[in-house]
Amino acid sequence: GVLGSGDFARSLAVRLVCSGFRVVVGSRNPKRKASLFPAAAEVTFQAEAVKKADVIFVAIFREHYSTLCDLADVLVGKILVDVSNNTEINHHKESNAEYLASLFPACTVVKAFNVVSAWTLQSGARDGNKQVLICSNNQEAKRTVAEIAQVMGFTPVDMGCMSSACEIENIPLRLLPAWKIPIFLALGLFLCFFTYNLIRQVIHPYIREQKNKLYKIPIEVVNTTLPCVSYVMLSLVYLPGVLAACSQLYHGTKYRRFPDWLDQWLQHRKQIGLLSFFCAALHAVYSLCLPMRRSHRYLLIETAVKQAVEKKMTIWVEEEVWRMEIYISVGIIALGLLSLLAITSLPSIANSLNWREFSFIQ
Amino acid sequence: GVLGSGDFARSLAVRLVCSGFRVVVGSRNPKRKASLFPAAAEVTFQAEAVKKADVIFVAIFREHYSTLCDLADVLVGKILVDVSNNTEINHHKESNAEYLASLFPACTVVKAFNVVSAWTLQSGARDGNKQVLICSNNQEAKRTVAEIAQVMGFTPVDMGCMSSACEIENIPLRLLPAWKIPIFLALGLFLCFFTYNLIRQVIHPYIREQKNKLYKIPIEVVNTTLPCVSYVMLSLVYLPGVLAACSQLYHGTKYRRFPDWLDQWLQHRKQIGLLSFFCAALHAVYSLCLPMRRSHRYLLIETAVKQAVEKKMTIWVEEEVWRMEIYISVGIIALGLLSLLAITSLPSIANSLNWREFSFIQ
Amino acid sequence: GVLGSGDFARSLAVRLVCSGFRVVVGSRNPKRKASLFPAAAEVTFQAEAVKKADVIFVAIFREHYSTLCDLADVLVGKILVDVSNNTEINHHKESNAEYLASLFPACTVVKAFNVVSAWTLQSGARDGNKQVLICSNNQEAKRTVAEIAQVMGFTPVDMGCMSSACEIENIPLRLLPAWKIPIFLALGLFLCFFTYNLIRQVIHPYIREQKNKLYKIPIEVVNTTLPCVSYVMLSLVYLPGVLAACSQLYHGTKYRRFPDWLDQWLQHRKQIGLLSFFCAALHAVYSLCLPMRRSHRYLLIETAVKQAVEKKMTIWVEEEVWRMEIYISVGIIALGLLSLLAITSLPSIANSLNWREFSFIQ
Repeated sequence: GVLGSGDFARSLAVRLVCSGFRVVVGSRNPKRKASLFPAAAEVTFQAEAVKKADVIFVAIFREHYSTLCDLADVLVGKILVDVSNNTEINHHKESNAEYLASLFPACTVVKAFNVVSAWTLQSGARDGNKQVLICSNNQEAKRTVAEIAQVMGFTPVDMGCMSSACEIENIPLRLLPAWKIPIFLALGLFLCFFTYNLIRQVIHPYIREQKNKLYKIPIEVVNTTLPCVSYVMLSLVYLPGVLAACSQLYHGTKYRRFPDWLDQWLQHRKQIGLLSFFCAALHAVYSLCLPMRRSHRYLLIETAVKQAVEKKMTIWVEEEVWRMEIYISVGIIALGLLSLLAITSLPSIANSLNWREFSFIQ
Repeated sequence: GVLGSGDFARSLAVRLVCSGFRVVVGSRNPKRKASLFPAAAEVTFQAEAVKKADVIFVAIFREHYSTLCDLADVLVGKILVDVSNNTEINHHKESNAEYLASLFPACTVVKAFNVVSAWTLQSGARDGNKQVLICSNNQEAKRTVAEIAQVMGFTPVDMGCMSSACEIENIPLRLLPAWKIPIFLALGLFLCFFTYNLIRQVIHPYIREQKNKLYKIPIEVVNTTLPCVSYVMLSLVYLPGVLAACSQLYHGTKYRRFPDWLDQWLQHRKQIGLLSFFCAALHAVYSLCLPMRRSHRYLLIETAVKQAVEKKMTIWVEEEVWRMEIYISVGIIALGLLSLLAITSLPSIANSLNWREFSFIQ
Repeated sequence: GVLGSGDFARSLAVRLVCSGFRVVVGSRNPKRKASLFPAAAEVTFQAEAVKKADVIFVAIFREHYSTLCDLADVLVGKILVDVSNNTEINHHKESNAEYLASLFPACTVVKAFNVVSAWTLQSGARDGNKQVLICSNNQEAKRTVAEIAQVMGFTPVDMGCMSSACEIENIPLRLLPAWKIPIFLALGLFLCFFTYNLIRQVIHPYIREQKNKLYKIPIEVVNTTLPCVSYVMLSLVYLPGVLAACSQLYHGTKYRRFPDWLDQWLQHRKQIGLLSFFCAALHAVYSLCLPMRRSHRYLLIETAVKQAVEKKMTIWVEEEVWRMEIYISVGIIALGLLSLLAITSLPSIANSLNWREFSFIQ
């Protein structure tokens, strides 16, 4: 059974019908709404629909839950699936599912399917996340809904008892929250260092010697900026750990909570580290591209011609050769080690490591 | 208990014995077959074996299930584990496990272990997929078989009730089905563009100016072909979405099913996108290798020598410098963004994103 | 309830309090220990604590389990969670959890939380592995503990019945055991080949022709060493499979166990293969860096100047051009294929492949 005739209710009905279930839709105005649903789904009055179904998807807004109170008698003993989402994180004091359960104490309420979009429901789970998070205080009802999700092509994930409902309802509202601060930080640092390098490598030579070095902007200036950003970010990964240790030494205990800013910082270390790795990898690619450039080729040929015309046979500077060799080889090794670190932050790799192995690699 | 004496039955017995279970094998000719099984497994007549065991692995072909009907009396109340596979996808109308269940209504049938190869069973789960997909209508029986799988070193995965059996039986027959069309598409496009570039860069200069440029085939021609393939594939990722939107606008509803060809195309987008990324990455590597080549070195020196002999000091062409700088920096940024896209298609990353985050990145 | 006042007991109490549970701590000397625990946790005598709690975390060493025997009466019917670890793999004959269960037959023992470090408990699961492996012979108790773990922010993983306890207790003692031999092997091979290449490319020219080529050590010598290591490692991946097949042919059966050394070798193939890929990838990066070096630039210009002074216009050697083109293009294709292989060894990818697909790619 599906209660409601919105976008989600219709997509749900489409998918259930496609997966071979018999679907009955409850609406206040079944005649007008029937055309919106697939032909195989029976559209009838709410009370009628509830009587015919054992599992009822409540696809209406939280604000209208109380309108269902008339159906309380026919709902007794049924499984109600709360699929609702909020518009803001922690908008209400109690989760929608818990509110629904409080309205209908004679029903078994299961929270599920809210992490799935109407589009995914309608077209079937193809790319991205196929998980449907399910929680309920009733094991049997949870299992029934899990099996429905399975048949619909999703991967049911047991999230425990009803107290997880709030957490599950917050998930679809999230938009990479842990990445926001680190990304703005990286952009800010990039801007600062880019301006500095621009002045130093392009504007300064132009003012001093009237030399046009504008062509350096797209690659060379970016390429000197990236490692600076990467270094600063990497140090920001390790700094909070040091501060935390100092705080523990100062207070003489490790059971005292850290101040909020330090706690936040500690939680963003992984993201800062990955951005640092991203900058380092880009720096490597930019550096590798340097000899491909026309300007590199032209400068090389011009030097050769100048040497040849002046009949200077040798140009070898031992110190510069060594500096470059060591710089490159240390860079490769550092990038190799950072890659290992980045690989262990993949969820499926991290899950196969115990904490000794994880901290060993870190 | 294990019924059967084929390859799978023997591997199953080996593994069960190694995992510390007491194993009894039921055979029609126990004397002749005993030597095939490990010494620790007891080999006896079928009826005998069934009496002694609570969980019975039915390791015989579907065609011979009916031969077990003589054992119906002793099988009452036992757990039958169907490990069979088919030779074709959807070969029979009902799955093997459901057929077995219909033959022995007094038994509890569990579908399991069919996704594991005899080789993996025998040598233990080492690399690759360690999951054993299990489904049954009986929770208790499912749990028992799951715990056996756990002790044998596999990861049991609950696939819900018996109706999933058909899907589970189809899994081992699959050979990257979603990749076939995209790979042939990529190969076809590669061939077309390769021929065009071969004519343009090698055959045409040879006919016109008698210049031997054959050395360009292994790297330069391939390297101009790859980005063409990558671009066309990338456009094929976004095109079906546009067509689907047009179809929805045209029909005035989003609840109408798309035509089959469009539906298929929409389902292959991820694979086409990954192949596009693969071509782009190969193009990047090929381009980076260009300055390593002997031919690059020779052409450089020859130009320098020519300039020196003619005493032309300058070779700088501002426009060409800028074109190359911009081309390279845009290429790096595009590759970086495509890499992010490719990383989010890893199952463990995709599972940690909600659909808002996923579509934001896409 | 938490029994014990060590580091783990305190971290457990902190986390439980933070997750909204009411916590009662049982100690022999509650007055002295109270200050160590968070204020929200009630610290009292052991018997008192046990009476008030339904789920009791036993955070004391295995050696002191017997001291709890006085509490046997009040413990009847409670759930005991064994969180203990050992100091050595397979230190005792039976696992700690099974020993605890044998001491208190009237309790339900659950093994859990031992794979989590005190630090992770205290600060909350942030990076790395968030899984809590749980096993018990009682489904209901296992589910209760799983839900506690869920609320605490961990991912409970059902590991089946109590016989898995031993395996779970060994996990935290593991430190990349499968990687030790392959890494030492790779380092050993690297050292051998490095010495050989050092003699050949640096020491020999110095002795023979007094040429100082020391600058070649950081990049060129390393770069000729890496593919040698990679090749030998790759052959060591495929060799044991051949030996195993020979052994099977020789003995005329595939149901005979392989000798231990071959079995070990077969089990390390994945790690050896990944190290081979790592060396190949490093070789690629080193090779791409070659034209970036100062020495490359100087040698190029010196050759050009020499040619110009001697007025030799041509330097093209067709054979060398072809050798390099083919060498590079074959290298790129090999690296591309090895990358595919490495990607399929990611756990989340491997889990989505069936064995036919996995062996097809391999």
